[in-house]
Amino acid sequence: MTGRHRVALRRGWTFARPRGTERSSVVLQGRLFVTRRTILLAAASLGAISLSAAPASADEGMWTFDGFPAEQVRENYGWAPDQVWLDHVRNSAVRLTGGCSASFVSPDGLILTNHHCVASCLYDNSTDAMDYLDEGFTASRREDELPCPGQQAEVVTAITDVTAQVMDAIGESTGEALTKARDAKIAELESAGCTDQETTRCQVVTLFGGGQYKLYTYRKYSDVRLAWAPEDRAATFGGDPDNFNFPRYSLDASFLRAYEDGKPVETPNHLEWNPRAPEEGEITFVVGNPGSTSRLFTQSQLAFEREVRLPITVATMSELRGRLIRAMDESPEKAREGLDLLFGVENSLKVYIGRMKALNDPAFTGKLAAAEQELKAKSADNAEIGNLWGAVEDAMDAYRTLYLPLRFTQPSGDLYGYAQTLVFAAQERAKPNAERLPGYTDSALPLTQKRLLDERPVYPWVDELMMEWSLSKAREYLGVDDPDSKLLLGKESPEQLAERLVSGTRLADPAYRQQLWENGLAAIEASDDPMIQYALKLAPRQRELKALSDAQYSGPLAAAGAKLADARFAAYGDTLYPDATFTLRISYGQVKGWTERGNEVPIRTTMGGTFERATGNPPFDLAPAFAANEARIDKNTTYDFVTTNDIIGGNSGSPVIDKAGTVIGTAFDGNIHSLGGNYGYDGTLNRTVAVSTAAVQEALETIYPAPALAKELAGE
Amino acid sequence: MTGRHRVALRRGWTFARPRGTERSSVVLQGRLFVTRRTILLAAASLGAISLSAAPASADEGMWTFDGFPAEQVRENYGWAPDQVWLDHVRNSAVRLTGGCSASFVSPDGLILTNHHCVASCLYDNSTDAMDYLDEGFTASRREDELPCPGQQAEVVTAITDVTAQVMDAIGESTGEALTKARDAKIAELESAGCTDQETTRCQVVTLFGGGQYKLYTYRKYSDVRLAWAPEDRAATFGGDPDNFNFPRYSLDASFLRAYEDGKPVETPNHLEWNPRAPEEGEITFVVGNPGSTSRLFTQSQLAFEREVRLPITVATMSELRGRLIRAMDESPEKAREGLDLLFGVENSLKVYIGRMKALNDPAFTGKLAAAEQELKAKSADNAEIGNLWGAVEDAMDAYRTLYLPLRFTQPSGDLYGYAQTLVFAAQERAKPNAERLPGYTDSALPLTQKRLLDERPVYPWVDELMMEWSLSKAREYLGVDDPDSKLLLGKESPEQLAERLVSGTRLADPAYRQQLWENGLAAIEASDDPMIQYALKLAPRQRELKALSDAQYSGPLAAAGAKLADARFAAYGDTLYPDATFTLRISYGQVKGWTERGNEVPIRTTMGGTFERATGNPPFDLAPAFAANEARIDKNTTYDFVTTNDIIGGNSGSPVIDKAGTVIGTAFDGNIHSLGGNYGYDGTLNRTVAVSTAAVQEALETIYPAPALAKELAGE
Repeated sequence: MTGRHRVALRRGWTFARPRGTERSSVVLQGRLFVTRRTILLAAASLGAISLSAAPASADEGMWTFDGFPAEQVRENYGWAPDQVWLDHVRNSAVRLTGGCSASFVSPDGLILTNHHCVASCLYDNSTDAMDYLDEGFTASRREDELPCPGQQAEVVTAITDVTAQVMDAIGESTGEALTKARDAKIAELESAGCTDQETTRCQVVTLFGGGQYKLYTYRKYSDVRLAWAPEDRAATFGGDPDNFNFPRYSLDASFLRAYEDGKPVETPNHLEWNPRAPEEGEITFVVGNPGSTSRLFTQSQLAFEREVRLPITVATMSELRGRLIRAMDESPEKAREGLDLLFGVENSLKVYIGRMKALNDPAFTGKLAAAEQELKAKSADNAEIGNLWGAVEDAMDAYRTLYLPLRFTQPSGDLYGYAQTLVFAAQERAKPNAERLPGYTDSALPLTQKRLLDERPVYPWVDELMMEWSLSKAREYLGVDDPDSKLLLGKESPEQLAERLVSGTRLADPAYRQQLWENGLAAIEASDDPMIQYALKLAPRQRELKALSDAQYSGPLAAAGAKLADARFAAYGDTLYPDATFTLRISYGQVKGWTERGNEVPIRTTMGGTFERATGNPPFDLAPAFAANEARIDKNTTYDFVTTNDIIGGNSGSPVIDKAGTVIGTAFDGNIHSLGGNYGYDGTLNRTVAVSTAAVQEALETIYPAPALAKELAGE
Repeated sequence: MTGRHRVALRRGWTFARPRGTERSSVVLQGRLFVTRRTILLAAASLGAISLSAAPASADEGMWTFDGFPAEQVRENYGWAPDQVWLDHVRNSAVRLTGGCSASFVSPDGLILTNHHCVASCLYDNSTDAMDYLDEGFTASRREDELPCPGQQAEVVTAITDVTAQVMDAIGESTGEALTKARDAKIAELESAGCTDQETTRCQVVTLFGGGQYKLYTYRKYSDVRLAWAPEDRAATFGGDPDNFNFPRYSLDASFLRAYEDGKPVETPNHLEWNPRAPEEGEITFVVGNPGSTSRLFTQSQLAFEREVRLPITVATMSELRGRLIRAMDESPEKAREGLDLLFGVENSLKVYIGRMKALNDPAFTGKLAAAEQELKAKSADNAEIGNLWGAVEDAMDAYRTLYLPLRFTQPSGDLYGYAQTLVFAAQERAKPNAERLPGYTDSALPLTQKRLLDERPVYPWVDELMMEWSLSKAREYLGVDDPDSKLLLGKESPEQLAERLVSGTRLADPAYRQQLWENGLAAIEASDDPMIQYALKLAPRQRELKALSDAQYSGPLAAAGAKLADARFAAYGDTLYPDATFTLRISYGQVKGWTERGNEVPIRTTMGGTFERATGNPPFDLAPAFAANEARIDKNTTYDFVTTNDIIGGNSGSPVIDKAGTVIGTAFDGNIHSLGGNYGYDGTLNRTVAVSTAAVQEALETIYPAPALAKELAGE
C-alpha cells in the first residue's frame, strides 16, 4: 500500500488559475486547465455575460463591497453592518495568488487560511527525510517559519470605476476589434495605475460580463511564510469520499505570515480572533474571493454547458483520474509526486459532476428558465436591447464549432505550459503594451514571470502522463483525420510524442527558463529544445483560434453583455451582484442546518465525532496526533459547522465573521448541493462548510501545541 | 513501449452478455456489466417497453422473420424476397453465444464471422511462445483447427407464439406477483420445449416490452473451432481512434467451423460465397442478432438515460479505462492480460458517449418527443390504455431511487462473478423450476454452468483492479454513510477489501468451482473461501433490491408495456418491429454513402488505401503480412463498405446478403452516427460498416494463404 491510500487531500473551495494566465482566458480560452498544481474551475466562466436572473433571494449573493445590500440584510436579520464595519473587514481580507482567500488575524501579519491552501508550500518544503505535508509543521520561533514558493498575499487598497474609459475606447467596434480596443485600454489603465510594481498590483476587472469595468489596486506581499499547519490527515480526514459532504471532521486550517524586508508586516487592520462555538441562527459573513460563477448565463449558454462542455470534461477528467490513481500505485515516490495533481483532479471532477447533476435536474433548470423569461418580459419595452438573446445564441452556435479545436489544441503538462508561456511572452513582449495579449501586458508580466521562473519540482512521468492523456483525448474528440489532430501529432502516436518531448526538453531547469526568458524571441526561435519547438509550431493555430473566438464568440458576448447589464439594472434596480471574478466579495447568511432526504442535518460536528467515525483505514484513519492526544482533547469542542453563506471555489480560507466583526471560523468547502451554486443559489440546500476557531484553538493548545501563536492570537 | 501500443483491438458491433445472466437481467438488474471478457451494451434495455415511436421509415427496422415488411421493401426497391429466400437465409444464420452473429458458408459447417468475435478464442489458445492474436492463424488441415472455449453456435429451428399462455399465467396480477407468474410460466414453457438439452436450447423472448412472448427453439453446436484468422493488426488497423468511423481499413473477418462428435457438421443450408465488390445503390440484407435497442422508450425513460444512467456510466467507465491503460503500461504481461478488458471498455464507452451525445442533441430528441406525441394523439380515444404514460413515469420515479443501490451493490470482477453465480445457483437449485430466478431455471442452467466451469485464464491483478474500482465508485455514488456502502465495505477500504478477497479466493481454479457447484448449498455455506463468503453476505440485499425493483419498476413496466403494445398496433397496424433482443432479425437497406459536414463519404475503401493511411505508428502501423505482401496485393480490391442497414451491437459478424441470396460481406461496425441508433434510426446518417468478401478472398489468396478454404468457399 502506497501513499495514495495513506494520504488523500482535498482541495475544497480553492480557486486556482494556471500560471501565466492571470487575468483572463487569453490564448488559452477553451482549454481544460490542468497543470500539476492547479485546476481552474473557471472554464465555464469564460465569456460569462450578464443577462437574466432575477434579483437575489435571501442570503444569496457574492456582493462587491461598494454594492453591499445593507437594507436587505437589515430586513432579514434586523441588523446590518455599517461602513466602518465593512471597511474594517475589507482591509483585513487577503487574497492568495495560489487561488485562495485568507485574513489577517494579528497586528504582526499573521494570516488565517485553510490547510489545503498551504499544502503546496508544505509539499515544496518537504524532502525524503522530512515530509511536512504528512507530519504537519509548527514554527517554534518566527525565524523558523518556512518560505512558501510562488505564494503572494494581496490586499485591496482601492477600487476605481473605469467603465466610462473602457466603453469610450470600445466605441462602436464589434467582434475582434472590440476585444482589441478593450484589452488595449485595460493594459493602459493597469500600467498607469501601478507605477510601483514592487509593492502594488493593478487589475481591471470586468463585471456583469462587460456592464462594468473596475480598476482594483492591491498592496502585495511577495514573501509569505508558513507558521503552523496540522498533519495532513487531520485536515483531510475522510478524503475524497467526504469532500463536499457534511457532517465533516476536518481541521482544514493553517497560519501564514506576511513578511517584507525580512520582517513580519505590520497589520493594524486585522480581525479579532474569537475561539468560540457558533450559535444556531446567528448571522455570519464570509469575506473572500469567489473564483467564478455562471449565474447570469442565458439558456443557450446553459445548454452548451449541459450538452457539450460538461460531458466532455467529466469523461476526459475521469480517465485522467484513473490513469493517475493507477500510476501512483507504482511506487511510494510516485504516490507522493502525483498527489498534488490527483487532489486537484478529484476536487474538480466532483465539482463538474455536481454541476452536471444540477443541469440535469429539471426542477433546478426550470427556475433558471423562468428567471430568464421574467427578465425578457420585463424588458419587452426596452427597445435598446434588441434581440440580444438571439445574439448570444448566435455566439454560442459559433462557439460550438470552435470549442473542440480551442480546447484540444492546448496540450497539458507543466513543461508544455512553460514552453507556451516562453513562446508567447517572447512574441508579445516585442509589441507595444497596448497590443499585447492580456497575460503579457506590463501589469501582468511580473506574476507571469514569477510563475515561470520560480523553482519547483518537475516530475517527468507526471508531465508525460498529462501530455499522453491530453493528446490522446485530442485525437479522440477531434478525430484522426482532423487537421488539428495532424498538427498536434504529425505521424507520431500520443505516447511517442509525449515521451520524445518530455525526455528531450531542458525546461525543468529554472536557469534554462530564465535564459530563454531574458534572451528574447531570437533565442526562442533558435532553441533546439523540442518542447519549445513544439510550442512554436502550435502557436499560430492557437492565435488563429483566439482571433476566431474573439470575432465570433467573445466579442459578440461582450457587446451583448454590456447592453444586457443595462437591461437588468433597468428591470431590477441596482441591487444586483455580478458573477464571481476572483475579486473581493462579501456574503451574508446564518448558521443553519438543512434537510437531507427527510433527515435534519445538524449545524455542527464535534471533535469527539472524529473518533467515532474513524475506521482505522484510510482515508478514515486518525491523524497520529489525534490518536496520541485523545484523552486530552475536549471532545465537545465544535469542530466543523455549516452556514447559508453563498460561496464558491476561491473562497477557501475566507474568514467566517460574526456580527461583532470577529472571526469564528474559516470556510473550506461547500456541501454537495452547493455544486449547483455555479448556476444558482438555493438557500434551502446550499451550505458553506467551515472549521471553527474553537477547534483551531483546541488544536493549538492540545494537539499541535503552539503557545506563542496562541498568545499572539489572544492579543497577549 | 508495451503491447498496448502495439495492439489495439476493437470490439465493433459485438453484443456480449455476462456469464450466468443469459436471458434477462435477473438479480443483476441495474448492474454495470463489466467482466473481463464482456461488456453488456444492454443496460439501457432492461425493462424496455413498447410505447411510442411512429412506424418505421425507409430502411429502418430490425425485423423478425415472421414480420418481414415485404410490401414496404417492394415499394422502396421494386423487389422483395419471397418466403423461400427468407427461409434459406434464416436457416443459414448462426448466433454465437459470445455475443456475435455469423452464417454458414459451406456444406461442411464453415462459419463466417468477424475477427473480433474470435479474438477471445485466439487469446485463450495463445501461450507465451505463440501469440495467435498477434500473428493470426490458418489451419492447413481441418485436424489443426483450434477449439474455442466457451463458444457455442446456435441456429433457430422454430419460433412459437406463446403470448396467450404467458398472458393467462399473468392474469390480473401486478408488481412482483406479475414478474413471478410470468417467469414461472416461461421456465415451464422452456423446460417443456427442449427435452434434449444436449443439442437443443429453448428461450422465451419478450417482444414489444411484454406485448408478445415467443418461444425460440435452437439447434445448438457446443464444439466450435477456429479455421482462419488474420493478424490482429489487420483487423484492428486504426484501433480505438478509427472505431465507429469510416473510411475504414479493417480485415475484421474470420472463419469458424461447427463440429459434432468430432466431425464437421453437415450444413446443407448455407449461404453461397460471392467474393465480389458491392455496387452503389444495390439492395442489401443483414441477418443477425441485434442485442438491444431502446427505441420504444417513453420520454420519462429517455430522461432517465440522459439525466442519470449515461452520465454515471460514462464517468465511471472513463475512470476504469484510465486505470486499465496505465496498469497495462506496467509490463508486457499486463499489456497482454488486460487487452481483452480494455477493448470491451473502450468499445462500450464509445457507445455510451455516442448515446449521450444523441440524447443531448435537441434535434434528435425532438423527433422522439414528436413520435410520442403522435401516438398519444392517435390513442386519445383508446380508453383501454388509461394513463399508461403516467404509469411509466411512476415506475421511472421509483427506479431513480432504486438505481444507485441496484447498480452499485454488484461488485465487478470475474472472481466475484463466479462466487455470485455459485451462491445464487446453490440457493435457486434448491427450489422448484418455476420458482427460480430466470438465470437458474432448468433451461438456462446448462449455459450458466458452461460459463462457470469452462477453464479460462484469471489474472488476479485484473480482478483486483475491477473490484477496487467498482467498490470505490460504489462508495462515491452511494456515499460513505449509506447502509449499502457499509454492507459492501464494512470498515475496510476498497483497496484492502479487493486485495483480501482476490488474494484469498480459490475460485480461479475450475476444479474448485466444479466442486462447489456439485456439492450444493451446504458446501457453499460451509466454504471458508472469502469471495464465497462475501457473495453470501451480499445476496440477501441483492434479492431484496430485485424484489423492490420487480414490485415498483419491472412489474409496472411489463403491465404498461403489454397494453401499450396493443395501442401501437391499434394506431399503426401490425407492420412494426420490436426492440432488439439478441434474437434473429433481418434488416434491409442499400449500399450508400452519406454527407459528413458537407463532404460526401464514399461507399467503399480499397485495400491500397491502407498503405496510404499507415503512419508506421500504432494503431496505424501496417500488419506485417500486409507490409510483406504489398507488391502482390491488388490495391483496387474493395476493402470495407457502408450500407443503410439498421443494425446494432450483437450484429457483429452478420452476413451482408445480396438480392441473389449470396453473401458479399460481413458487418462489423456502425459509423459514429449509428450510436444514436439505440434510440432512433436516421437513414440520412446511420450506416453499417462491413468488410467485403472480395477483400477476404484477396486475403485468403495473397496475404494469409488458405488454399483449402478458398476451394471450399468456391464449392470445389
